[in-house]
Amino acid sequence: MGHQTETHGFDPELVPDERGRTSRPEPDCPVEVALAAISGRWTTLVLRELMSGPCSFGELRGRLPELTAKVLSERLATLVERRLLSREKLPGFPARTRYRLTETGLRLRPLLIELYRTGVALTTS
Amino acid sequence: MGHQTETHGFDPELVPDERGRTSRPEPDCPVEVALAAISGRWTTLVLRELMSGPCSFGELRGRLPELTAKVLSERLATLVERRLLSREKLPGFPARTRYRLTETGLRLRPLLIELYRTGVALTTS
Repeated sequence: MGHQTETHGFDPELVPDERGRTSRPEPDCPVEVALAAISGRWTTLVLRELMSGPCSFGELRGRLPELTAKVLSERLATLVERRLLSREKLPGFPARTRYRLTETGLRLRPLLIELYRTGVALTTS
Repeated sequence: MGHQTETHGFDPELVPDERGRTSRPEPDCPVEVALAAISGRWTTLVLRELMSGPCSFGELRGRLPELTAKVLSERLATLVERRLLSREKLPGFPARTRYRLTETGLRLRPLLIELYRTGVALTTS
C-alpha cells in the first residue's frame, strides 16, 4: 500500500482540480482565496451594502452607524487593494467618493448567498 | 427623508429574512454562523477529508502529514464541540477512534463547493 495522501481519491465535486489537493493550508488554494477575500470583521456587511449598488462613504456610514469612520476607511481600502471595489470621485462640491464593486467583487455574490443559506441550515435542527 | 438604515431596501436573495438585516456583526447572523463553523487554520482541510467518509485519527494524520497530532486533536475537538463531527470508539485492540460528520456537518458541503468555485472565479480575470 502506498502513502495515504497519494492513494485516496478526492471527491471531484469538492476538489475539482489540482489546486484543491493540497495537504496543507496554501494561500493559492481556491478555498483560502475565497475566505481571504471576505476576511475581516464588518467585511461581509460592507459587501452586502455594496451588492445593492454603488454607495458613497456617507451612505455606508448611514447604513452601518456602529462602524466607525476609521474602521470603515480601513475596510474599504483593503477591499480596493483586493481589487473587489473601485473608488470613484464624484464631480461637484464638496468632493464625494463613491465605492462600487468591481466585476471581480460581484463574483462574491453567490458565496454570500451560500454562507447565509448554510448558516440558516446549521441553526435548523 | 428617514434614516438610511430604515429606508433602504434589502436584496431578498442576499438577505432573505430578518436575521441578515443586522447593521453590525452579530454572532447569530447566518453569515457569521457559517463562517464560525469553518473557522480556524486547517479546518476546511479536515472537513474536506471527512466529506469522503469517516476517518480514524491515524488516517487523518496520514492524509495531512504536516498537521501535528496536537493541532489535529484540537481541531477535531472543536468540530465535535460545534456538533459538526461525532467521535466513535471502534471495537478491538488497540482502541481506535473514528470521526464522522454529523448530519449538521454534512450541511457544510455546498458551502465548501461554493468557496472553491468562488476562489477559482476570483483568480480568473
